[in-house]
Amino acid sequence: MTDSDRQLFEYLQTFLTADRQARFADVLSQRTRRITVVLEDFYGTHNIGAVLRTCDAFGIQDVHVIEDEHEFEHVPEIALGSQKWLTVHRHGAPHPRVRCATALREAGYRLLAVTPHADAQPPEEVDVAQPCALVFGTEKDGLTDEILSLADGAVKIPMCGFVESLNVSVAAALCIYPLMRRLHAGPYDWGLTGEERETLLYDWVRKSLPHVAALEQRFRESLVAHDPLTSPQRAAAGR
Amino acid sequence: MTDSDRQLFEYLQTFLTADRQARFADVLSQRTRRITVVLEDFYGTHNIGAVLRTCDAFGIQDVHVIEDEHEFEHVPEIALGSQKWLTVHRHGAPHPRVRCATALREAGYRLLAVTPHADAQPPEEVDVAQPCALVFGTEKDGLTDEILSLADGAVKIPMCGFVESLNVSVAAALCIYPLMRRLHAGPYDWGLTGEERETLLYDWVRKSLPHVAALEQRFRESLVAHDPLTSPQRAAAGR
Repeated sequence: MTDSDRQLFEYLQTFLTADRQARFADVLSQRTRRITVVLEDFYGTHNIGAVLRTCDAFGIQDVHVIEDEHEFEHVPEIALGSQKWLTVHRHGAPHPRVRCATALREAGYRLLAVTPHADAQPPEEVDVAQPCALVFGTEKDGLTDEILSLADGAVKIPMCGFVESLNVSVAAALCIYPLMRRLHAGPYDWGLTGEERETLLYDWVRKSLPHVAALEQRFRESLVAHDPLTSPQRAAAGR
Repeated sequence: MTDSDRQLFEYLQTFLTADRQARFADVLSQRTRRITVVLEDFYGTHNIGAVLRTCDAFGIQDVHVIEDEHEFEHVPEIALGSQKWLTVHRHGAPHPRVRCATALREAGYRLLAVTPHADAQPPEEVDVAQPCALVFGTEKDGLTDEILSLADGAVKIPMCGFVESLNVSVAAALCIYPLMRRLHAGPYDWGLTGEERETLLYDWVRKSLPHVAALEQRFRESLVAHDPLTSPQRAAAGR
């Protein structure tokens, strides 16, 4: 972040309430990139929204979306705005699965396919010492053979009823929650770096301000005019 | 079960495939009444269906429904038929909450309200030595003060994101799964009794046969005529 970016950032933050700033700091301190979620060619905004909401709820920052036949759709109302706070990485044609798997592996992730069919370990036994990417397919079709062949391992949620698959947001929660609990309890360096936190906070602050473009414009004009800026706090103090 | 009931039951079972019979025996051996789920005045078939599916998936047999403003709706297609295999107990006016709580307490359950607001224990720390009933409210309204005052304790799923509540089927899964895992791993007598299994299996067998009324009629007529019955197996063997 350049000096003028940082000045702008500080300026924008003054428009947030103290409660909002504290909430951002709190959520940010719990975010991780050590566990991430991959959605293979999802469709249906309800399912995507429910998974995004679960990711947000448990501190997962990154969601990778493989777009083959289905483009990622924006679902603000169902996810209760969760998507706004997450970093969605889209992997498209050609070869979206290979591209996604390669990018994740280069970033140090193990790819774990979550599937009811494999002979696999339950979520609470997944090794959290290495960053992992949990790959979910749609409820109807499950994971493709291609993504299964690209995965490094598999996770299976043990079930004992008549249904053969779980709602995907339920499966995601049952994988994410125990992994996050163990990450938090263990000796792992799971938080975001200072730089990552700054970048993300900047993004969140911008998304929280309804007239951010006008505020930024005002800031830039003030720089040109060498004019001290008036924040709401300064204005309230009569300065 | 009377002798003639048992004869009828055995007769009906001969119409199931061996695979089906094995599946019933397998699921039955994993069912429990030691943990149960209470839904407070739910509406919206999608949510109810997703919770029922989760109950079935993890071996919960009984679901209690408190019907105050909203009558319980049947949702076969969304629950993928889960409801058919569960025992749904409906508690209606007057005072449906008190009636439900009283019935459960008399049966030895502790009522645990699942809520994001209380200062409460996480699901993985809930004591499974005593039977417990997990009480869920709707996502929109949460639990009422009345049911909270009737509960013996509270469970809270720790969250660290912007969303303040989880999808209810997600919350149910995150409570049920760790409790069931610990029940299975512990020294508890969590399975159904022989009599409960027999009654439930009878119900499942009846629900699986499309023309069960005609088969039962045929059985009763054969008893009157003292005529040996012809099951599909016997017929196939030429007897």
